[in-house]
Amino acid sequence: MLAVERQRTPGGVERAIATLTEMAARVGQAAGVEFSVVGVGFGGPVDLASGRIRRSHQTSGWEDIPLGEMLAERLGLVSHLANDANAGGLAEALFGAAGRASSLLYVNVGTGIGGAIVVDGRIHVGATSTAGEIGHCIVLPDGPECTCGKRGCLEALSAGAALARRAKELLAESEEPASSLRARCVDDLTGREVGHAAAQGDALALRVVDEAARFLGMGIANAVNLLDPEVVVLGGGVPEMGDVFLRPVRRSFQEHVMPSAACTPVVPAELGYDAGVIGAAAVALTEQGARSEP
Amino acid sequence: MLAVERQRTPGGVERAIATLTEMAARVGQAAGVEFSVVGVGFGGPVDLASGRIRRSHQTSGWEDIPLGEMLAERLGLVSHLANDANAGGLAEALFGAAGRASSLLYVNVGTGIGGAIVVDGRIHVGATSTAGEIGHCIVLPDGPECTCGKRGCLEALSAGAALARRAKELLAESEEPASSLRARCVDDLTGREVGHAAAQGDALALRVVDEAARFLGMGIANAVNLLDPEVVVLGGGVPEMGDVFLRPVRRSFQEHVMPSAACTPVVPAELGYDAGVIGAAAVALTEQGARSEP
Repeated sequence: MLAVERQRTPGGVERAIATLTEMAARVGQAAGVEFSVVGVGFGGPVDLASGRIRRSHQTSGWEDIPLGEMLAERLGLVSHLANDANAGGLAEALFGAAGRASSLLYVNVGTGIGGAIVVDGRIHVGATSTAGEIGHCIVLPDGPECTCGKRGCLEALSAGAALARRAKELLAESEEPASSLRARCVDDLTGREVGHAAAQGDALALRVVDEAARFLGMGIANAVNLLDPEVVVLGGGVPEMGDVFLRPVRRSFQEHVMPSAACTPVVPAELGYDAGVIGAAAVALTEQGARSEP
Repeated sequence: MLAVERQRTPGGVERAIATLTEMAARVGQAAGVEFSVVGVGFGGPVDLASGRIRRSHQTSGWEDIPLGEMLAERLGLVSHLANDANAGGLAEALFGAAGRASSLLYVNVGTGIGGAIVVDGRIHVGATSTAGEIGHCIVLPDGPECTCGKRGCLEALSAGAALARRAKELLAESEEPASSLRARCVDDLTGREVGHAAAQGDALALRVVDEAARFLGMGIANAVNLLDPEVVVLGGGVPEMGDVFLRPVRRSFQEHVMPSAACTPVVPAELGYDAGVIGAAAVALTEQGARSEP
């Protein structure tokens, strides 16, 4: 990477696009390059073929926005859009944890859970551009309610927000087991704090992390039974707690997957927070390449 | 199809191959053609690239058999092998229910449950040649035991054998609800009989079919969230009971899938029992074509 600039997305589509345009100019100058194509990783469903945003997962006002077209107009450049989890998956496939694998399942476990399927160096986007949504696969019928309105989605059981919710439930339920988390006001407890406590051996946090990891391993096993990828890459903030999470994920994966696929490696992502921007650039390059082929 | 011959697979690999060789000669003669390539759909996991059988789902003695090579030797022809559900899915994609769709998820619900993913006219076989195994995705943690040894697999809840098992359970459990099935000795009850009773309005059979359809719809929703295919095709004996099964499958699918994919059609297969042989031929033609490309 030659130059990086980070900013919070400002409210409103127009202001966001103005900010992006300014950032692109500054980053180009800092890197001393002229851009020939632009890639965008967006936190929500995107129609890759038309470059339209369907909606944002984070904020309102982004319903059916032709962001690709708008950026092309402002920047005078062709732009390619992808969902941020898809972009992250492509980055890990091409430059990160997937090594030389020709197919990968990428699972991003942060506040929510997103995913991507990459085959032969390209994102499998699917018929409606929403492929890879492992987070909304149901792993526990009638389980806890998900942000999507359904019950028992993987996201509702294994994402960062689910770690926090489950820890609060267990803290309220009984005086057992002991936990360092009892000493604090738990209303604003985060998944990250639960992860830290688990890594330090906190019994209650370990129970929460084990449960979440068990469902994640099962969800990954189901996806591997279907897709049979060469490698599974786990990105996002939650797997960053390390072995205390990865070990039970792998155990559950091997317990629940078909024996023929039990050796499929489940590895942590390598590109961290940069996966999104590297992936956005990779989307631009691979899509540009694919579309300029005869 | 120019000529067809059906036989039960004889016991033992050698006898089976001898029978296949004789059948091929007779069928070629009946059709008045000389074959240039052979396709095989096999009831078990197959390594498509090497033409080796991993094992049979139905009978022993088929562990790691180089069937492709053996047939090539006997017939003097290149042969291509695929799992039977994969072959059926390819047949429906190219000549059956998928119409002009470029991607499909095929789910075969018979005694067990198999599946296939077809993208751009080719089977997605996966890294270990086992992609498409939707039947062993877990939809009910700690649910009933499956033939594979795990618990709560879709196959253990929605396949023909599961219909029979669940009907027997309900018959043994209580005198309610009323059922025509109570009049017979239920030890050898089949899924087909449960389906017939449901189609005739039998209350107990309807409850069994509804439960199975509900899990199948959820399993398909999970797969569609991941793969986002253009169409889902339901083959095998169980969906042949018609709307009494298809209607609750579709209802459950729409309830459990992401809203953006809720319009994905779930349609019955069109090729029936012939899907396997048509698909085997299609595998031979598509693989032969792909491998002779520069």
